[in-house]
Amino acid sequence: MAGKVFFSVSMSLDGFIAPESAEELMGKQWMELQQWVFPLRFFRENGGLGQGGEEGHENDIARATFERTGASVMGKRMFDAGEKAWPEDAPFHTPVFVVTHERREPWKRLGGTTFHFINDGIETALEQARAAAGDRDVRIAGGGTAILEYLNAGLIDEFSIALSPVLFGTGIRLFEGIDASRIALEQINAEPGKRATHLTYAVRAR
Amino acid sequence: MAGKVFFSVSMSLDGFIAPESAEELMGKQWMELQQWVFPLRFFRENGGLGQGGEEGHENDIARATFERTGASVMGKRMFDAGEKAWPEDAPFHTPVFVVTHERREPWKRLGGTTFHFINDGIETALEQARAAAGDRDVRIAGGGTAILEYLNAGLIDEFSIALSPVLFGTGIRLFEGIDASRIALEQINAEPGKRATHLTYAVRAR
Repeated sequence: MAGKVFFSVSMSLDGFIAPESAEELMGKQWMELQQWVFPLRFFRENGGLGQGGEEGHENDIARATFERTGASVMGKRMFDAGEKAWPEDAPFHTPVFVVTHERREPWKRLGGTTFHFINDGIETALEQARAAAGDRDVRIAGGGTAILEYLNAGLIDEFSIALSPVLFGTGIRLFEGIDASRIALEQINAEPGKRATHLTYAVRAR
Repeated sequence: MAGKVFFSVSMSLDGFIAPESAEELMGKQWMELQQWVFPLRFFRENGGLGQGGEEGHENDIARATFERTGASVMGKRMFDAGEKAWPEDAPFHTPVFVVTHERREPWKRLGGTTFHFINDGIETALEQARAAAGDRDVRIAGGGTAILEYLNAGLIDEFSIALSPVLFGTGIRLFEGIDASRIALEQINAEPGKRATHLTYAVRAR
């Protein structure tokens, strides 16, 4: 059985998922967006930050998101920012298909992450990710532009948002440019967490 | 004991609370924003639409929001749109203070709603609403501009959002123009409903 195509992001209450420039990402306020993730046991393990960390429901959510993912797709902007920031043991541990104009040989990292550079569009990248994922799901990892392209192309089955109790006022909005006339949502799940609310929606054609 | 100052709105997942023009409000897609409210017993009762309707948790939320409110404050835009649309028995059943430049005698409606027109700013309107509310709470009823003014002035204690599973792409954003550098939020409550997720936040200074 083929897996689903999904994305999973942390979003501020005013709809932002990232600052305008990658440099701001480590700023105090932007760190609040991901605040629910940092204390988790799974985050520490997966990032090679050692033992310890919180267990419980939000840890289970983070772990389940990782475990369902058989391959990821990402846009050029996210890859370019991550290339400098990820540790050698990149946190994906699966094949990652990067939609880019850059021609480049696959880039193999420690721990099972291999980046493949796809030059002929989002559908090809998704096809290859599906093949690599087998019966697990494909995660559109980001950034915002890539997620929106897949959403507007009708290629997303469902998505999860960790809605963080923070307001930014500026940045990159998850749904900026959405083709709202074609997309209907069905609310699948909503679970309160300690530092965010975890929302899941299925995407339907309108 | 003085009551709290709050607002309570339905917001789309992409952050909109109203269309650009009031005429669109009754359009199919915009009706989806309030979809969680229409079937409720409380909505039918309070709007004079007769008996029947759904009971249960979301009905309790709608009723509690009404019952805590001792007085409301609204902006000119909301009043102007409502003046034509509300029934004679307007749905507030308390004093309502309208922030406007228009000088006008109080306008008394059936069922306990009286509109008072306040010409000297949002703080005066709030003061008068507080006095009228006694130990109940003051609701900043809307529209978006009025809510944002009170939020940026640090005059809101807490707020509730019914987050509806719908995307609009255009309209009036609740948090457009927010002074994010001064406002911190504390997530008080998150409750899944059948047609929306009910979120409550306390507002803190940053």
